Amino acid sequence: MNRSRIGIVGAGQLGRMLALSAYPLGLSSLFLDRSPDAPGAQVAPILLGELDDPARLAELAAKCDVLTFDWENVDGAGLAPLLHGTRIRPPLAALEVSQDRLHEKALFSALKIPVAAHAAVDSSDDLERAVRRLGARGILKTRRLGYDGKGQFALQGARDIAEAWGRMGQRGLIYEKFQDFSREVSIIGARSATGHIVYYPLTANAHAGGVLRYSVAPFANARLERLARRYLKRVMEKLHYVGILTLEFFVVGGRLVANEMAPRVHNSGHWTIEGCVTSQFENHIRAICDLPLGSTRAVGHAAMVNFLGNMPAIEGLLRLDGATVHDYGKAPRPGRKLGHCTIIERTARERNEMLKKALQLIEWT
Amino acid sequence: MNRSRIGIVGAGQLGRMLALSAYPLGLSSLFLDRSPDAPGAQVAPILLGELDDPARLAELAAKCDVLTFDWENVDGAGLAPLLHGTRIRPPLAALEVSQDRLHEKALFSALKIPVAAHAAVDSSDDLERAVRRLGARGILKTRRLGYDGKGQFALQGARDIAEAWGRMGQRGLIYEKFQDFSREVSIIGARSATGHIVYYPLTANAHAGGVLRYSVAPFANARLERLARRYLKRVMEKLHYVGILTLEFFVVGGRLVANEMAPRVHNSGHWTIEGCVTSQFENHIRAICDLPLGSTRAVGHAAMVNFLGNMPAIEGLLRLDGATVHDYGKAPRPGRKLGHCTIIERTARERNEMLKKALQLIEWT
Repeated sequence: MNRSRIGIVGAGQLGRMLALSAYPLGLSSLFLDRSPDAPGAQVAPILLGELDDPARLAELAAKCDVLTFDWENVDGAGLAPLLHGTRIRPPLAALEVSQDRLHEKALFSALKIPVAAHAAVDSSDDLERAVRRLGARGILKTRRLGYDGKGQFALQGARDIAEAWGRMGQRGLIYEKFQDFSREVSIIGARSATGHIVYYPLTANAHAGGVLRYSVAPFANARLERLARRYLKRVMEKLHYVGILTLEFFVVGGRLVANEMAPRVHNSGHWTIEGCVTSQFENHIRAICDLPLGSTRAVGHAAMVNFLGNMPAIEGLLRLDGATVHDYGKAPRPGRKLGHCTIIERTARERNEMLKKALQLIEWT
Repeated sequence: MNRSRIGIVGAGQLGRMLALSAYPLGLSSLFLDRSPDAPGAQVAPILLGELDDPARLAELAAKCDVLTFDWENVDGAGLAPLLHGTRIRPPLAALEVSQDRLHEKALFSALKIPVAAHAAVDSSDDLERAVRRLGARGILKTRRLGYDGKGQFALQGARDIAEAWGRMGQRGLIYEKFQDFSREVSIIGARSATGHIVYYPLTANAHAGGVLRYSVAPFANARLERLARRYLKRVMEKLHYVGILTLEFFVVGGRLVANEMAPRVHNSGHWTIEGCVTSQFENHIRAICDLPLGSTRAVGHAAMVNFLGNMPAIEGLLRLDGATVHDYGKAPRPGRKLGHCTIIERTARERNEMLKKALQLIEWT
């Protein structure tokens, strides 16, 4: 498979970092994206087109040896006809289940992975029934196409039902009981086509408004890490998964409650570029190209902080000991992920100090 | 300087790795090279032309914010006219002194950095005199354009004078007394335009036939490291250097004897990509773009092995714990540097074990 070409559907920052990690292995990439200015298009060639245009996907497949994804919400209808002649990794089944919060939770439950109590909501009557059954503190979400806190409404009491339905009212919702969590953590792993699995250290994540602000790793809790690995393994094996898969959890009273999965490299794993022997990006490339998976060992104590809305002055950040900056080459826009900064230190204490300094230099808009 | 463009003269593997390390900082690169298939041209745009064509260099300068080099033997005549409108980093004086072994040794001597006893040789009489004065074990080298053991002849005794002159006979040679060294080491550092200097850990290098086979780092010898840093600092400050500079030494009876300098990122620093918080490539980019220099701290014990002449089957190497592979995208040719493998381990002992295994998988041709 050496010198082969990887087709990447979507040329966002995840695709960009995938392409950059493919080059050292002697591999090239070709993107499919709407925008000639997309982050990935600045580092590798691109086919211009809609991500679910069957003709464009077929062209991408014809020009590449394996297809993979920067964006998991690609319509399976455009991909299914390609399955006979093309390796698509991760498998379509993984994309599809991750596209619907209800299917995702059904999968988790079938695999005995705890999830928040929840109910499908397709009418205001459904919502009232769900609130009666699950309690009036909860979150109403779209089942499909929600990400980074978009398509969500948090209910604080029964009085919010009318407003929630007024704002979100449509078919295809899910109501989830509020989780009183102490922390959010994620586990990332890679699985090869032969079934070999490697796991990255457990990562602790801080969100605001549904968007990841920063991550800290390794999150040293051996019991939770073992549990997270076990859950991730169940999902990977069930889906005959190939590539990087991410599971996000709430920590609730010492238990892990699965929040969602991402069938791709994940923002909470960006620290692995500098923080692990082999990054999540390289291990995704290795997995989908049938190359042996690399060591996921952490080489220090890492923190990753997102740049949201505007780019900070990177000089100040680069002056911090152990800091590295990633600029995705995107135009500023409120809430948009424009880049990130990683800090690698010898000890957790030093890392925490540097993280504090970095947070003072970054303004989220 | 953010989002600026770097002009790189020469699109070999060094340029390729420079361009790959510029992308995360939001910077782009443009190469000048003869060959559209050059390693760098596979990862960034290229201007086609000779490296010392004044018109092409002017075009590169006009399109970029700073010029730097993959190859230090560029004729200063093509660059000098650009000096008024263009930042050229490292400075021309550094390129020029490094292009001539005699000037290089004169600089080292002026800075009280020990060098091998040597003599300029422009005739067979010169060679006979040099051999009489310095001894009959020595190396006759071209003063200019020698690299990787090319342009050298090793004399074992006075009987070899005729053959040496027969093979190498021309003006512009240097005869160097043979150094009975126990080791070869190199030091790499980066200097900013404001005079800030950072040093990488001392690296031990194993050559054969004048070509680097493998490097091991950090080479833990605090006394030699201090000495090497002191020498590197003298050269950098003398030349008002900006960017990465490398000094290679022989260790002779516990002393450092300077062999040569390279005004650029260096093969003996490739391990810093995975092995240090900030790689030599990124620190070169940071230095020439006036960004703060990054931490040169080693994150583990590293070994780097070159692929010479043919690419090994990378699957076997990738299966080794802690191993990463870099394929430069070059066609095989005897002796050619086609890629390298880096190993990062927690301890020197584990690193040495993995290095031994890697060496068994690599055949040099």
